[in-house]
Amino acid sequence: MRGPDFTLTAGPTMASDRVRAALGGPVLFDYDPVFLERFRSLEAKIADLLHTEQDVVLMQGEAVLGLEAVARALTAPGTKWLNLVSGVYAMWFGDWLRSFGAEVVTHEVGFDEAIDPADVDRILAEHGDIERVALVHSETPSGIENPLREIGPIAHRHGALMVADVVSAFGGCEVRVDDWKVDLCVAGPQKCLAGPPGMSIVVVGPRAWKAMEANPSAPRGSFMSLLDWKARWVDTDKSAFLYTPSVSDVNGVDAAVDEVIETGGIEASIARHELAGRATRAGVKAMGLELWARDERYAANCVTAVRCPEGVGTAQVLAHVRERYGVMLSKGYGPLAEKLFRLGHMGPAARSFYPLVAVTALGRGLADLGVKVDVGAGAEAVAQVISEGAAEAATA
Amino acid sequence: MRGPDFTLTAGPTMASDRVRAALGGPVLFDYDPVFLERFRSLEAKIADLLHTEQDVVLMQGEAVLGLEAVARALTAPGTKWLNLVSGVYAMWFGDWLRSFGAEVVTHEVGFDEAIDPADVDRILAEHGDIERVALVHSETPSGIENPLREIGPIAHRHGALMVADVVSAFGGCEVRVDDWKVDLCVAGPQKCLAGPPGMSIVVVGPRAWKAMEANPSAPRGSFMSLLDWKARWVDTDKSAFLYTPSVSDVNGVDAAVDEVIETGGIEASIARHELAGRATRAGVKAMGLELWARDERYAANCVTAVRCPEGVGTAQVLAHVRERYGVMLSKGYGPLAEKLFRLGHMGPAARSFYPLVAVTALGRGLADLGVKVDVGAGAEAVAQVISEGAAEAATA
Amino acid sequence: MRGPDFTLTAGPTMASDRVRAALGGPVLFDYDPVFLERFRSLEAKIADLLHTEQDVVLMQGEAVLGLEAVARALTAPGTKWLNLVSGVYAMWFGDWLRSFGAEVVTHEVGFDEAIDPADVDRILAEHGDIERVALVHSETPSGIENPLREIGPIAHRHGALMVADVVSAFGGCEVRVDDWKVDLCVAGPQKCLAGPPGMSIVVVGPRAWKAMEANPSAPRGSFMSLLDWKARWVDTDKSAFLYTPSVSDVNGVDAAVDEVIETGGIEASIARHELAGRATRAGVKAMGLELWARDERYAANCVTAVRCPEGVGTAQVLAHVRERYGVMLSKGYGPLAEKLFRLGHMGPAARSFYPLVAVTALGRGLADLGVKVDVGAGAEAVAQVISEGAAEAATA
Amino acid sequence: MRGPDFTLTAGPTMASDRVRAALGGPVLFDYDPVFLERFRSLEAKIADLLHTEQDVVLMQGEAVLGLEAVARALTAPGTKWLNLVSGVYAMWFGDWLRSFGAEVVTHEVGFDEAIDPADVDRILAEHGDIERVALVHSETPSGIENPLREIGPIAHRHGALMVADVVSAFGGCEVRVDDWKVDLCVAGPQKCLAGPPGMSIVVVGPRAWKAMEANPSAPRGSFMSLLDWKARWVDTDKSAFLYTPSVSDVNGVDAAVDEVIETGGIEASIARHELAGRATRAGVKAMGLELWARDERYAANCVTAVRCPEGVGTAQVLAHVRERYGVMLSKGYGPLAEKLFRLGHMGPAARSFYPLVAVTALGRGLADLGVKVDVGAGAEAVAQVISEGAAEAATA
Repeated sequence: MRGPDFTLTAGPTMASDRVRAALGGPVLFDYDPVFLERFRSLEAKIADLLHTEQDVVLMQGEAVLGLEAVARALTAPGTKWLNLVSGVYAMWFGDWLRSFGAEVVTHEVGFDEAIDPADVDRILAEHGDIERVALVHSETPSGIENPLREIGPIAHRHGALMVADVVSAFGGCEVRVDDWKVDLCVAGPQKCLAGPPGMSIVVVGPRAWKAMEANPSAPRGSFMSLLDWKARWVDTDKSAFLYTPSVSDVNGVDAAVDEVIETGGIEASIARHELAGRATRAGVKAMGLELWARDERYAANCVTAVRCPEGVGTAQVLAHVRERYGVMLSKGYGPLAEKLFRLGHMGPAARSFYPLVAVTALGRGLADLGVKVDVGAGAEAVAQVISEGAAEAATA
Repeated sequence: MRGPDFTLTAGPTMASDRVRAALGGPVLFDYDPVFLERFRSLEAKIADLLHTEQDVVLMQGEAVLGLEAVARALTAPGTKWLNLVSGVYAMWFGDWLRSFGAEVVTHEVGFDEAIDPADVDRILAEHGDIERVALVHSETPSGIENPLREIGPIAHRHGALMVADVVSAFGGCEVRVDDWKVDLCVAGPQKCLAGPPGMSIVVVGPRAWKAMEANPSAPRGSFMSLLDWKARWVDTDKSAFLYTPSVSDVNGVDAAVDEVIETGGIEASIARHELAGRATRAGVKAMGLELWARDERYAANCVTAVRCPEGVGTAQVLAHVRERYGVMLSKGYGPLAEKLFRLGHMGPAARSFYPLVAVTALGRGLADLGVKVDVGAGAEAVAQVISEGAAEAATA
Repeated sequence: MRGPDFTLTAGPTMASDRVRAALGGPVLFDYDPVFLERFRSLEAKIADLLHTEQDVVLMQGEAVLGLEAVARALTAPGTKWLNLVSGVYAMWFGDWLRSFGAEVVTHEVGFDEAIDPADVDRILAEHGDIERVALVHSETPSGIENPLREIGPIAHRHGALMVADVVSAFGGCEVRVDDWKVDLCVAGPQKCLAGPPGMSIVVVGPRAWKAMEANPSAPRGSFMSLLDWKARWVDTDKSAFLYTPSVSDVNGVDAAVDEVIETGGIEASIARHELAGRATRAGVKAMGLELWARDERYAANCVTAVRCPEGVGTAQVLAHVRERYGVMLSKGYGPLAEKLFRLGHMGPAARSFYPLVAVTALGRGLADLGVKVDVGAGAEAVAQVISEGAAEAATA
Repeated sequence: MRGPDFTLTAGPTMASDRVRAALGGPVLFDYDPVFLERFRSLEAKIADLLHTEQDVVLMQGEAVLGLEAVARALTAPGTKWLNLVSGVYAMWFGDWLRSFGAEVVTHEVGFDEAIDPADVDRILAEHGDIERVALVHSETPSGIENPLREIGPIAHRHGALMVADVVSAFGGCEVRVDDWKVDLCVAGPQKCLAGPPGMSIVVVGPRAWKAMEANPSAPRGSFMSLLDWKARWVDTDKSAFLYTPSVSDVNGVDAAVDEVIETGGIEASIARHELAGRATRAGVKAMGLELWARDERYAANCVTAVRCPEGVGTAQVLAHVRERYGVMLSKGYGPLAEKLFRLGHMGPAARSFYPLVAVTALGRGLADLGVKVDVGAGAEAVAQVISEGAAEAATA
């Protein structure tokens, strides 16, 4: 089978030319002075993009590794967490916490809804002794964005550590770590940054470090140990890695970050993703399909989830679209696998008419399989929103 | 300014990933045994794709060089040519012939029409002494395809050499050099093959070689000399180049050719371009725009020319589309510059929904500038033709 | 500072052009059918290269991750290990085992010596109840190769699981997993295969799976869980990943493996590394420097360790060589950091005159810093061994 | 057969990583605003490197094309040239001049010698009416450098146009077009710049333009026409190409030029080539082989020519070295093919220990074939010169 012509998925998504050139660049020795300097400067550039002065730790392994490392580092038997669940990843994070012995207070809403900050405030007040609050900022499996901006300060006011999964938020929507009182977050380079899927970006503030150090259950002497990174790298002159970093992944992420910086900065990146999401949603609705998110105000910028119409299966539709049109889209994930499609608009795919290709591929594919869809209206709506948005951006 | 997101032009067009990887491959010494073998096998593979057992000469320099070399090699003062003109390139070819002293009989039709073989037969009969017939198979500047299949045998029957410009035909529509009695043709790798624009592919048959050898005006001792290539390379053991070939261009063209061979062969490549052309034309018409070709039966497979509506200028529209949408399209060329747009669907751009992007970008761009265009209808039509065509291809 | 001209280190080492092109290839969605097929076929190809029919698990994260995962999976409090220590990695593996609660019997030799199989036999007999034997086949930090071929069957005979670190052995010296009765081993693609440093290749046989399943302490529900990989991927139809694999790393390793297969196979790869090691050692000795290995019979094929002469420091020498000559070499690692240099000859660096560059760079660099070295004699010796070895290989 | 491990030839030579990444970059439409801007800025950067304010014309086709275009543009029947011949290229340039009807005064020295400026002065004075003087600055086929610096002003003083082939001089030795009163020169990007071999860089001053315009025989309406470039590109707003430029070649040359600029500038580039030449010559002599140049003072910086010892043939030696060691070297060219070897040290190959590889490969290869060569002494000499030169460069 041929490779795809378009990869418009929920990630890994298509990488830009610049990122790919960097991935294919020379593989340097990790202690080569050029590589050491690149690694250190990448940390600093990422901190800037996330508006933080906290420590940035670049772990090898996609974000699932970083999230597990964080869950372990901050959990001792009995540690009391508030886990805010509006999607699959939050649900699974809770499973980890429980398996590590935490006492978990779960606040769950429908996976097509966002968390309401008022509920968080209320629950924290009711309990009074919650130590950590966990939130997934942007739930990639269902395209839902949660109000970290408001929840972070609430957690802080109640004396709890704010722990956020900003994996697919980074680059696609605003993430202001310090302003929002986030004590620890995990970002991923393979979503809106469109870097390669091999790195966990972990931002750790002083309160989080302190909590880990006080935790006898936190991993030590392990690939997964944040404390080892602190001892060996962060607290020294940053010249000894914990293990060999993936040189080509670092090169790729460095290029992705530079590309964001040099093409308008993080604000322009966020604006592109916001527009791509808006255009995609307009197209989906105009085609006569139903968005997964109950309210567009919390539909994510990185990916648009679309309810699967009756009469077809998600796997069937994806396979058809991939085979006939060379377009790779995503279905749902975990318990949502059969319920929705996901049109990714991250990184390069948030630009130009990529959303048009995604919307038309889904619409035309459904039509091929007998679903009544207005492809023309969908395409027209996408193009119109992009036109208006690009015009605004140009005059801004 | 940022690079484009989509290059959907009349060429150079976007290169495939495989071609780009080859272009970026190691630059070998031209007499390295691996390079020599690659060069020789490339000649053979190209001959196969063009259905010929004649000699293939790979000159360095885009097809304009090869065309000039041919015009010079086959023209002495007084040589009598029939020049069949249905477009800009044929017109310019005639200028060369005259400047080299030929006696040129010109048969010209509107640049939005194709040559009628019956006219060729009649003119050749009327004159009786025409030595060479020149035809542009596919006029890239206006998207018109001429019936080389029928004209070649007519020229042959009248004892004239058939000389064809198949630059943008190669890979996009059928070219059967030997069956069609073509004595000499020039193909380009940078159009439907989507290779780099740095090579002239010249196919020379025995009658054409003989005519050159008999021509005292044919270039000798020159970068442009086909006879030098014959003496130094073709007639020997193919181990001495006339000059240093462009190693990276050869690598790129070799990859482009391999890609055609390994993804269904030349017939599948032609079918893709035919479908892309059909889908594009359907979209253009459904949007309410007018095709340049008076009759779709001779609309080219490589590029679709669209008449520029009143009230806008081609340069203005292209610049707007490039700036707002990151999509690069072409306008007309030479005397047609202000009259038409060209949507390229060559190489990778003939696949998947690239034609949708081209049609929508043009339509939406025109709409932005005040032209009444039905973008939705256009997009719908493109998608539908692609769907039907892909379905047929899959069952074929 | 400029990037290096030559990376001749103990790894990451320079990647080949083919590997780099693959690393820079399109980033596919991990559930794209083309990627799924590539992932599965890569497992099969690696199994072939390692001469095994056991299961191959490709974990994301350099080999340290795989080794930790293995140590955890096979250790419950009280599990009795024999840890065979002839170098740094084995020493650290023991630290893990103890921290996970194992009862560790340590047999340690000098870090410039290899393990004697007779000792293993004796110790296993003495104890009678040792459950697992751990051996580092090729100690990269000191360039020592241990006789896994003989120790594997001994462990097997005594009823213990044979667990081997073949990270830097894979591709550079013979590894016959099934013939040698290895129950579990971890290989790395970033050493002699010269792939990118982002993957742990874990080969697990039925006895090892059984031991893990019986181990309540084995990681489950974790990035590090081999049992999760078994449940989710190995025992199913291999269509659900445990987490997103690093697409570009997989592409890179796939290319590295194909390159080995298509350039003479694994035997030719081993022969190249063997010759490169022999040539390097001849050069080192001829220059008047001292090899680290007490006996060349157990000097590793992947890297040559050289004792640091008196009067200079390893870091000083490396920095000088890197700065003046653009050549990156390695020093020792961990407790050996100040004691030795390492000249890498892995992957592309095992070919042609790369060993000459490494030897001359070290020799000339030492001479610059006042050490008495016969650079010419060293270079001559390297070239002569390569000449003889290449001549033999050609006639073989 | 495998590709080479080292390409250390007289060109095409190995391209740098940066150049290769650029060659493999996106193929843009030639009228894309980004490409247009790149093309124009490349002209300006090249002018800077050549210390000129004259016009730079970037023709598609390796330097042979540019040289022929120049010879034609400046020759009418009877035009009187002084052709200064110290090598193969100058000899062939004279053949062109004669075939175009020039009256050619030839001053020829041995091909292992350089032109003496005093002779030029004398001959110009004797004749009094010589219109153009032709000199090859650096004769790649024999590694001889001529004193353009002194000859240019002499020609100027005598009222003749100074026409120089600086193809392999550019980037490797000083070329000051304006200071040296050069009216027209042709440079190549595929030699010391290590760009791809697909472009002729022609620098034309006002006197040369005037001479062309006054020449009715100068090509017009041709791929080879400098006057067409002037009319269509140079004298306008530089927005209309004469023909489609090779986009990937332009990308590659642009990267090569940027690399020179950003790694110390043209002076540092020249110094690297000078040192590489010096080191190579020291090695050749120490091995007991004989340099081709009678006097090292005029040995070229780009390539070192070595006399072929008795008893072996150049083709035999090259094939052996390529096969056994994976190292590609060059033999002589044209009438010198059997007389000498050429070790290239251009671009990346002028750095680090590449000269060591070239010298050792030749020496060891000759030794394999029975020639008495002191490989060790040669390697030692190369390394020592590089060490001293690099030390000086660092303190400069």
